[in-house]
This record gives sequence, structure tokens and C-alpha cells, in this order.
Amino acid sequence: MAERVRLGMVGGGADAFIGAVHRIAARLDGHYELVAGALSSTPDKARASGEAVGLPRIYDTYAEMAKREARRKDGIEAVAVVTPNHLHYAVAREFLKRDIDVICDKPLTGTLPEARRLARLAERSKALFILTHNYTGYPMIRQAREMVADGELGRLRLVNVEYPQDWLTEPVEQQGVKQAEWRTDPDRSGTGGAIGDIGTHAFNLAQFVTRLELDRLSADLDSFAPGRRLDDNAHVMLRFESGVKGLLWCSQVAPGVENGLRLRIFGDRGGLEWFQEEPGRLWVTRHGEPKRLYTRNGAGATPGNTASSRIPPGHPEGYLEAFANLYAEAAEAIRARREGRPAPANLLPSVNDGLRGVAFVDACVRSSARDAAWVRPR
Amino acid sequence: MAERVRLGMVGGGADAFIGAVHRIAARLDGHYELVAGALSSTPDKARASGEAVGLPRIYDTYAEMAKREARRKDGIEAVAVVTPNHLHYAVAREFLKRDIDVICDKPLTGTLPEARRLARLAERSKALFILTHNYTGYPMIRQAREMVADGELGRLRLVNVEYPQDWLTEPVEQQGVKQAEWRTDPDRSGTGGAIGDIGTHAFNLAQFVTRLELDRLSADLDSFAPGRRLDDNAHVMLRFESGVKGLLWCSQVAPGVENGLRLRIFGDRGGLEWFQEEPGRLWVTRHGEPKRLYTRNGAGATPGNTASSRIPPGHPEGYLEAFANLYAEAAEAIRARREGRPAPANLLPSVNDGLRGVAFVDACVRSSARDAAWVRPR
Amino acid sequence: MAERVRLGMVGGGADAFIGAVHRIAARLDGHYELVAGALSSTPDKARASGEAVGLPRIYDTYAEMAKREARRKDGIEAVAVVTPNHLHYAVAREFLKRDIDVICDKPLTGTLPEARRLARLAERSKALFILTHNYTGYPMIRQAREMVADGELGRLRLVNVEYPQDWLTEPVEQQGVKQAEWRTDPDRSGTGGAIGDIGTHAFNLAQFVTRLELDRLSADLDSFAPGRRLDDNAHVMLRFESGVKGLLWCSQVAPGVENGLRLRIFGDRGGLEWFQEEPGRLWVTRHGEPKRLYTRNGAGATPGNTASSRIPPGHPEGYLEAFANLYAEAAEAIRARREGRPAPANLLPSVNDGLRGVAFVDACVRSSARDAAWVRPR
Amino acid sequence: MAERVRLGMVGGGADAFIGAVHRIAARLDGHYELVAGALSSTPDKARASGEAVGLPRIYDTYAEMAKREARRKDGIEAVAVVTPNHLHYAVAREFLKRDIDVICDKPLTGTLPEARRLARLAERSKALFILTHNYTGYPMIRQAREMVADGELGRLRLVNVEYPQDWLTEPVEQQGVKQAEWRTDPDRSGTGGAIGDIGTHAFNLAQFVTRLELDRLSADLDSFAPGRRLDDNAHVMLRFESGVKGLLWCSQVAPGVENGLRLRIFGDRGGLEWFQEEPGRLWVTRHGEPKRLYTRNGAGATPGNTASSRIPPGHPEGYLEAFANLYAEAAEAIRARREGRPAPANLLPSVNDGLRGVAFVDACVRSSARDAAWVRPR
Repeated sequence: MAERVRLGMVGGGADAFIGAVHRIAARLDGHYELVAGALSSTPDKARASGEAVGLPRIYDTYAEMAKREARRKDGIEAVAVVTPNHLHYAVAREFLKRDIDVICDKPLTGTLPEARRLARLAERSKALFILTHNYTGYPMIRQAREMVADGELGRLRLVNVEYPQDWLTEPVEQQGVKQAEWRTDPDRSGTGGAIGDIGTHAFNLAQFVTRLELDRLSADLDSFAPGRRLDDNAHVMLRFESGVKGLLWCSQVAPGVENGLRLRIFGDRGGLEWFQEEPGRLWVTRHGEPKRLYTRNGAGATPGNTASSRIPPGHPEGYLEAFANLYAEAAEAIRARREGRPAPANLLPSVNDGLRGVAFVDACVRSSARDAAWVRPR
Repeated sequence: MAERVRLGMVGGGADAFIGAVHRIAARLDGHYELVAGALSSTPDKARASGEAVGLPRIYDTYAEMAKREARRKDGIEAVAVVTPNHLHYAVAREFLKRDIDVICDKPLTGTLPEARRLARLAERSKALFILTHNYTGYPMIRQAREMVADGELGRLRLVNVEYPQDWLTEPVEQQGVKQAEWRTDPDRSGTGGAIGDIGTHAFNLAQFVTRLELDRLSADLDSFAPGRRLDDNAHVMLRFESGVKGLLWCSQVAPGVENGLRLRIFGDRGGLEWFQEEPGRLWVTRHGEPKRLYTRNGAGATPGNTASSRIPPGHPEGYLEAFANLYAEAAEAIRARREGRPAPANLLPSVNDGLRGVAFVDACVRSSARDAAWVRPR
Repeated sequence: MAERVRLGMVGGGADAFIGAVHRIAARLDGHYELVAGALSSTPDKARASGEAVGLPRIYDTYAEMAKREARRKDGIEAVAVVTPNHLHYAVAREFLKRDIDVICDKPLTGTLPEARRLARLAERSKALFILTHNYTGYPMIRQAREMVADGELGRLRLVNVEYPQDWLTEPVEQQGVKQAEWRTDPDRSGTGGAIGDIGTHAFNLAQFVTRLELDRLSADLDSFAPGRRLDDNAHVMLRFESGVKGLLWCSQVAPGVENGLRLRIFGDRGGLEWFQEEPGRLWVTRHGEPKRLYTRNGAGATPGNTASSRIPPGHPEGYLEAFANLYAEAAEAIRARREGRPAPANLLPSVNDGLRGVAFVDACVRSSARDAAWVRPR
Repeated sequence: MAERVRLGMVGGGADAFIGAVHRIAARLDGHYELVAGALSSTPDKARASGEAVGLPRIYDTYAEMAKREARRKDGIEAVAVVTPNHLHYAVAREFLKRDIDVICDKPLTGTLPEARRLARLAERSKALFILTHNYTGYPMIRQAREMVADGELGRLRLVNVEYPQDWLTEPVEQQGVKQAEWRTDPDRSGTGGAIGDIGTHAFNLAQFVTRLELDRLSADLDSFAPGRRLDDNAHVMLRFESGVKGLLWCSQVAPGVENGLRLRIFGDRGGLEWFQEEPGRLWVTRHGEPKRLYTRNGAGATPGNTASSRIPPGHPEGYLEAFANLYAEAAEAIRARREGRPAPANLLPSVNDGLRGVAFVDACVRSSARDAAWVRPR
């Protein structure tokens, strides 16, 4: 096994859900050693969180961390950026310009202008920029992508993707729930609420599996919880290029649904369905034949399914393993760059996928502001 | 048990799916005796079908049947109209004007002007007019309606209803499939294809359970199968009165889905989900509590659930039993009218529900023609 | 359509669940007219129930009914026997000896000696004797049987059948629940409790699908509810001929399970699974391939599936329709006999299947009494 | 975060499934550093596997490893034993006697005499002995255990546990499948085949959740695959103390089932069900109420559920996370011992649980040899 990649982290302190997820994902396959971090923008919290996590090098600010790690011989090779959205750009810049690879949580940024700047920056940088649209790491999503490409569904017609959750049913951002506070705060989350937080996942997943480009959309966004400042529900009609139609629903006010990301795709010869809460199952039907159930690493697994599985079928792998698949691919890419080898083929979401996602959010917000007029992503 | 209601039937000959369904539904609880019919507009087929079904009195045309049955002492008391949509108005008129109760398949008519005329006719008639939106007959749908009314979900926010099928994935109307022929023919089906055939069911079900009135909608309709003349897929964004938002998807080109009518409703205190292919189950969640599974005639059944069940829980009742529930309620209403008793309370879909459905189709078609502009039902 | 078969009924009065089921099953496809009955052994109840059901001819006793109906020109052609088990023999005898066909509920009788006598009687009679093991009427069970016969699973190895219910969790027979009273009363139910009431269904279903003959069994029976006089739970290990092994569990004290009959069969090339609460689905796996979902009247339906379906896939048919399938086949057989035609091929459970079932109960009881010793059916 | 525990590993080379699982489980929460190993009994493979895994210290034999690590100041604190069963005793002994904590895969040993010797050894040792019955690490299993203890089901009556798999349907041990070779070889696996490999898991799980002790059992074991030398299917009737009855089925020849461990428990007031392939769900029914669905870290989670969860509900955790829960608890216990602190309360399977498991296998084999006679565990 190759040397572990030396990893730093910005954000992801005590209260954060996603920071812990990134740490587990980095650890799970043994490709990384987390050696430095600025886990909070509040120095005291940064320090306490860094100690709780057992970081060898704890920094008060990300800027200091970037500067000092870049100077060390054993400095970090890559950094995980897991702050609220409004900081992604500024943080990533500090590391990219020092040639440190960036693994950034989604959405790319909170606003479209920032997303564009970050995309330009990333493209000009020699360093890698990887966006953690983690649902693309699920083995059955890899299989779905491969089966669509192989024509299993025929010519595509319909994409139906939904992502309901229930955790923001009540205005818990006013009741001290940290996760809810920044996600419903335009200054930290950006222009999108649910549409940015989870709508981007749904949209990205649809594109990842179908490889379709969006032409136009019509969106109806709402904020149902009293006093909420960003959308918590979105209905979006999609028109992809080449005549494929789509429907996207995301919601954080759907009681009884925990994390209900579901993707259904239909063509003129078949259809498929995948549901995130049962991630190891993919239902595929050739029109006129019985429905078939494909499973993670099971009978009929495609190469992408097998390659992203660790253990035999029936032994559930889940969210963390899918996340770790991105980290594993990232480690290969990072090592290849360090060693001057050509980058191995991978399916890692790029800064352009991130830009596409923020442009999607921007389009939804603009459409909704114009009473669901059709708009094109800018 | 009371005397059986003497029933006639118009349409529903050999090739028809829905005629056979009505006959079973009428028979199942023993409330009707089918004694006369004009089962096809082609006299030879009408005769052959009538004999196959064992009809005592077979007519070549519905007009003749209406006239002659009205004169008999033992003539039919009610007629089931199960023709293609374009005939509903003309057929119903012949019977209504002779004071014969009408049980009519949905949608009410193929066009909005006809629907209005039929509604006026029915309202002026002393005879009953009952529309078989059969999905309202499912016990768990009755329970859902009662639980929503009882505030189990709190104040409603979202209605998500979908009705995908796969049987028109290919242009089978060009391959001799009778069921497909008239449903995709504007002259017989009317202005709506899938939106009329199954979209009206979905919309009706949402209204039945929530009792909400539609304010506006935005619809994107497509005809995916080559050469198809009516829509086979519809994406519709809904705005109900009082701020409730909805999303409706119906499709007949969704390979792998047999009859996937699904209703989800969310309020500020809870959510529920029902799926037609597992009709005896209703999932209800109070926000912050574990999901509960209510079953047909099972623990926690509401009065409407129990009243529309025949056998113990776990012994599946299905589509035909739900349909028969409408026929059973209709029989009570018909007998009451014959006997001069006040009509018993019931939940039977009325001509106004039918008018609402056709106005919904009309609005979808108009909206889609204007690139999914928001339109109000006329 | 042929003339309706004139049907009588013995048992099935007001409190009875199964009488109403038989009446619906007889009515559903229009093959029968229920014209006479002795619905209770208590004359007052027999009369009141007969009136409630709308019977043209009501009798105080089944003996009187047999005698008088046999003399009428328009007397009943067949009788449905839906009494408690201890009366099956005596009732059936009266009708069989008068050449009236008998449709009898399961188990055949309450004791093995009676079952043998009834079997001899039925075999000597020209009249038909049909046992309503209704679960054999499900379309997917017909498909399962055909697929097993076609070698889809290869050489069989294992049969796993279970039938848990929860309705006798508490000693409700001591609380006025009529259905529970006779089923837990050895005088009326016979030697078996749950094993007779539902274990026979499970055993019959396993045999129906596999066509295997039982060699030996080892049974552990319990009565968990305080004061209960018959078993309410049974664990049974089975050895079929030719080395196939089986496991059977039935229970009426399994809280949370409504009517959980489930059949799984495994061979050296494949396996299948069917669950009564989702009766329109059959899961079949060829070893090394993805699992396939076959549905009622859906893609890949076998002839037996299609022939026992009424409506398109996705429109659930249930328990009553499966029951009605037996009645429909019985009507064909009855008419053929009346008309002197050879009996059409059918899959109707026979008196010998009933004898096999009672011998199974008898063997379970004997085995359990000997501490689960292996015993052969007598 | 505390210092990582220095871990060694014996067994788990290139071909092994379970070695990789232990390594991921050890890594996932960051409590261990794998620093030494003898991953195969073949020195070449030991070396190659050690390098592939990136081990700092690679040994040719476990004996050498035990000796030399014990002498190092920075030697391993604990060792994971993931060899075939026949080596567990000998390997564990080398480490236990040097005061190195042992984390051992199940079953404890291949034979009962060895299990007893190992149990004595472990009890006399100051070192910890932990058996990885990993299914006890699932959060919903922790919740099930707590709910049973809290009387949610009332007084227990029935335990139904099954563990079918399909991967040994064909005699793949004769076709070069390493995992199959040793598991079907009495010299390496011990007296039990499927009953030892997975039956012990099923039995352990039932005991873990119910805390019941076995009184007697009756077992019928088979080897269906041609030439197979150990059982590949087992039917077992169980009698627990205090009158609770059980049924256990395990199989490795059940085509279509990947890893179908399922546990159902019924008492006089309620029932529960858990299925390993959907591990984040627990179905609980209070008799007479609707079924409730509890989820990992979701509404109504018990302390043990929450404590063994990492991420929010709806984000599936799976097999590896459950396994890691044991490793996390083990790390706490190991550190406490090193630091002279009292052992924190935990639910780690002990050597006595392992002894109980091997005694169960031994009893099954003895019972089956005597034609399924009732036997008591020795």
C-alpha cells in the first residue's frame, strides 16, 4: 500500500455533521492521515475541536494553516474544505494557490459569481479540485450510469429525481440547532436553501447517471417554516437537451422522510429506480420483461459496481463507504500528481460539476422569482 | 338483504377492460342484477358480447335501450356507462332524462364544454349521477381522508401525487391494441391523453383526501411514443388555495411501473404516504415519532376504513373491492331514491368532481400549449 | 355465459367470517346463484342470517335442506359447507348421498378417522367434493407451481413455509370472540388448533407448489395463551420423499403479523419466494443471476397466472379473487358433470388433499405428544 | 482523542474476506493503528499480504510475532485473530499468555474441547478476550435488546431466527474458491459447516437480544451440495429456559438470498422484527396497535441505538460500521486496562459467549447424528 496522503481540514468542528463524515471517509480505506486542521473560525473552538479529533497540528485560521503547511516538508498534500458554503471560495483559494489539492464539500459556493471565480481559479491551478457529491460514490449509482450508457434503457425520455427530508419541518434554526442555523442563513448558505443543500445533490445525481445537459427549468420555491429565510421546498420542471424531460422535487419539510433521495430514469426500452435509503439495490426493467434487482457486488454487477464495493453482497455498505469511494479515488489522483504520473481515470465530481450545480440553484431562484418562468442556467 | 338493483350497461364489450371491472364490482356484494346492455356501438359486437356476458336483454344501441327499458315495469333502475369518453355525454343524457340513475366511468367527458353540459343536465335531473373515481373506494384512502380532516398532519403544506404506468411505452395503438387505440385518439378520448386517463385519477385522489381546491397550475405535457397524438406524460406544478403546493406526475411511458399511483401529503405536524400497488397499507408519521403502518381493517382503523372493508386484515382486498365499494354506496343511494328515503351520507364522486377533473385536464392542456404558463381552471 | 349454478350453504351465519367469504367468492364471477341455506345450527339464527343474506329458501337444519332440495326440480346443484370442522363429515354426507356436489371449507374434518370416512364417502359418490384451500387459487401460486415443474429451480432441496398470525395472542376465546371460540375448542375444531386452522393451509400450499409427498415429521406444539385448550403455535421439521427437507412454522400468537403465510422453495439451480400479504408478486432467482420479480398477469406470466387473473397487472387482486378462482373452476366442473361432459382439467383441492391435511395434523399432534419424535402420517 | 491502540493481525491475507473487514473496522473510527501482522501461514503469502496492506512489521509466523512484539516497548497492545477456526486456540494462547489482548473472529473454535480450553485460558489471563459477533454491533439490535429488557414485548414466548445465504449452492469448494475451501473442510472449520459459520451468529444474536439461556435443541443437518463434507443447511428447534420456544434455520444453499439474517421475537404483549439486509430498521408492534418503524438514530431511538450511530438517520450505516462498533468498544476496554482504569461497561461478546456458540454447534451436530433427538448443550 502506498504512503498515506497527508490531509488537512478546514471547518468540521464539534457541532458539524459533515466534518466527521469527511474524517471517517478519509480514514476508512487507509489512504489518508489527517495531520492538520483549522476546524472552526472561532479560535477556541478550533483548538478544542482539533484536540478532540487528535490533530497533530492545530491552527487558529485557515490562512495561517495554508501558509505554514506549504512551507513544511511534511506539510499537507491535500485539504478537505467542510465549512459553510460562503467560505468555500476564500478557503480553497488559499490552498489552491499554494499547490495544495482541495477536496471541497458541496455546493461549490453560495453564489454564482463566486462559483465562477472558483472555477477559473481551479482551472488555472495545477492543484486538483474535487467536489464531494458523495452520492455518486454509491456502487449502484455507478452501475446505473454504466447501464444507461450501455443502452439498457434505450433512448432516454424521462428523469425523475426527488430528495425529501424532514429535519427542517419546524423552524429549528431558531431553536439552537447549529446545522440548521447556517443552512437557512443567506449570508452563510447563499441564495439557495434546500435547493442548494440537497437539490444540488439530486440534480448532480441525475446528470451523473444520464450525462444529460440541462437546457431550461421552471421552479417553484417555498419557505414553509415560519420565519425561514431560504427555501425549504422546491418543485422544478426540467428540460434537458435532446428532448428529455425531468422533474425534481426537494424538500426539508416532509415529515416521515429521513433522507429520501430517489432517482428514476425511463427510456423507450426500459426503466430503472434507485433509492438512497436502500442504496445497495438497483431495480432495472427491460420493457416487457420482469423487473430485475441488481445488488451491490451481486449477480450481474457491472465493473463500476464491483470496483466500488469492499465486501460481499448482502453485507450492507452505506453512506460512509460511498463517501469513502470518492476519497479513495481522490487519493489515487493526488498520489499520481505528486509522483508525476498521468492521472488515472476516475469519476470524481469536478469544479465544473460544482459550477453546474450552483448555476442550477441560481436558475431555480431566478425562475421562482419570476413565478416559475422558464430560465436557462447562466 | 334488499332487492337487487336492476342494472344496465352501455359499452364494455369483449375487448374492454373497464366494462368487465364494472360488472365484477356490481356483482361482488350482491347489490345488482345486470339485466340489459348495449355493450358495443357495433351491433354485431353488442350482441355477441351481450351473449357472452349472459345478458337477459341485449340492445343494438343505447338509445333503443334507454327508450325501451324506461317503458318496462321491470326496466333497469340504473345504467353503467363505460364507453370511450366522447360518448359519456350523449349516453348519460338519454338515461338521465328518463330518470334512470347513471354510474359513469371517468373522466366525465372528453372536453370541457361537454362536461359543463353534462353537469348542468345532471343537476337538473332527479336521477343520480355517480362518477367512478374508483381509487376513492380504497379503505386506506378513506382513512387518509379522515386522518387529514382530524388534523393528524397539522396544517397542510405539500401534496405530491404521481401516477406512472408503462403500458403505452411503445406505440401499441398502431399495433391493434384496442385499449390503446381509443385512449390515444383525440376524437374518442378528448383533449387529454394520459392526463385525462390517469391524471384525473391522481388529481381527484389528492382532492378527495385533502379537500383542497386548486388555484392554478403549470403543466408540461409530452407525447413520447412516435406518432402518438395525445400526451403520454405530464409534469404539473400545482398551487392550491391557502398556499398549499402540489406536484403531479402522470405517465404511461414509464417502463417497470405497472399502476404506480402514489399519494404523499405533508403538513406542519406530520406526513402520510399511500401506494396503490400495496393498497392495504397507509404510512403515517407524526413529526418526531416513529413511522406507523396502518392497515386495512387493522389496528387503529378509522370508521371509514372499517366500513369499506369486508374481511380481516392481512387478507388482501384490492382494486375490485375498492371499485365495489363505490357500487355498494351507489346501491344504497339508488334504493333510497326509489323508496323516497333521504339519501344516506356517502362519499361518491359526483358530476361536479367530474367537472373539476375535466377542467383540470383542460387547464393542463392550455398551460402546456402556452409553454407551461400558470393557468386557472375554467 | 352458462346458466348459474344453484348453490346452497350450510353454516356461515351472522358471526362467521368464512361464510361471507364463500358467498362473495361464489358471486364474484357470476357463476352461482345462492338459493338456499341453513346458515346456523340454531334455528333462530339460521332464519335471521338467511334473511340478512337474502336467501330465497331458508332451512332450520341442513338435513331438512338436503332432503327437500334434492326433491325440487330447481333444487341446489351444489352446497358450500362452512360450518366448524366437527360438522363437515355429517353435513357433507347428507348432500353427497343425494348426488349434490359439495364445496367444503378446510380442514377436511377435525379428526383423522372422520377424514377417512369422508374420503371414502366422497370417492364412492358420483358427486364432486371440492376443498377450499383457497391460497392455491392465487395466480402467483399457480405460476410458482408451473415454474417448479418446469425445472426453474433445478432439483429441489428445501421447502420453508410459515404462517404466523397474531389474532389469538390473548385468550380472546374467553372474551366472547366467536371465531376464536370454536377454533380453540377440541369438540368443534378437532385435534389441531393453529396447526389445523392454518398449518394445514401452509402444508397444503407447500405440496401444491412442489408436488412433494411427506415422508416424516417432527413437531413441537404449544399453547401459549393462558387456558387455551389447543395449540396456538407449531414448529415442524419436515422430511419429504427424495431427500427434500422442510421447515414449517405456524402461529396465532405472533403480534404484528396479520396473515403472514410465506413460502420459500430452493433447489440446486434457483429459489423462489411468495408472501400472501403481497400476493401479486413472486420472486424468482436463478442462481448466479439477479432476482426477478414476476407479477400477476405481468411480464413473464405463465399460463396458470394469466388464466387466474381478471384485470391488468398493478391493479391488485387479492384474497377474494383467489377464493373466487376455486369457485370458478368448481362451477366448470359442476356444469360439466350435470351436462355429462368429461371434467375439464383443474387444480381444485380434492378430498384426498383434505385427507392428507388431516393426516398431517394428526402426525403433528402425535409427534408433539412424544416430545417431537419423528412420525409418519398415517 | 486518545492514542491509537497498536494492533497486530494474524490471518487475513490476500484471499480472505474477513481480514479486510477487521482492518476497515479497526480503522473506521480512528482508534487503532495496525502495526504488525502474520497474515498467512505461508511465509511468502504472509510477506506479500503484509506489504500489500502496508504493515510496518511483517512476521512469517504468529509465534514469532507474539514473542517479538511482546518484547518491544512499542509492541502491539492487541491482536486480531482472523484465521480459519482450527487455529484460533493456538494463536490466541500465544498472545494471551504474553498479556496481549485478543480480538478473535467467530466461532470461538472448531471443536468444543478446544473452546473449553480457550475459555479457561482466557479467564485465567489478565488480557482481554473479545469475540467479534459483529451483528450485535448494529444500532437497531442494541435498540431491540433494550426494548425487550424494558418489557415492550411483555413476557417472551417465541424466538424465530434464520440466516440463509446462497453462496455455497454449488460445490464451489471444489472449484478453487478459497473462502469455501476452509469453511467446508472439517480439519479447518471444525465440526460445524453452515451451523458453525453462520448458525452461531444467528444463535448468538437471539441470545444477545433476549438474554435467554438454551435448555435443549433438536437439529436436522444436511449437506446438499455433492461431495460437501460439512452441513450446508440446518433446521433447529429450540427450547429456552422458562418455556420460550425457538426456531432456527441457517443455510448456505438458498439461491436468491445474499445474507438474510432475520430475527423475530414475540411476547404476550408485542413483537419485533429485524432484517440484516435493511439493518437500520426495526419493526415493533404492541399488540393491538399499528406497527411502528424505528430507525437508526431516528425518532424513538433508545440510548444504545444513538450511542452506536455516527450519522443522522436516513444516511445508511451498514455492516462495517456495526463491526467498527465492536472495535470501538474494544478500544475503550483495552485503553482502560492499559491505564489501570476500571473497564467501562460494554456489550462486547465474551469468550463465554463464544463457548456457548461452540456448545450450540456441538449440540446441533450430536442431535442431528441421533436423528434430531433432543440434546442439551454440554
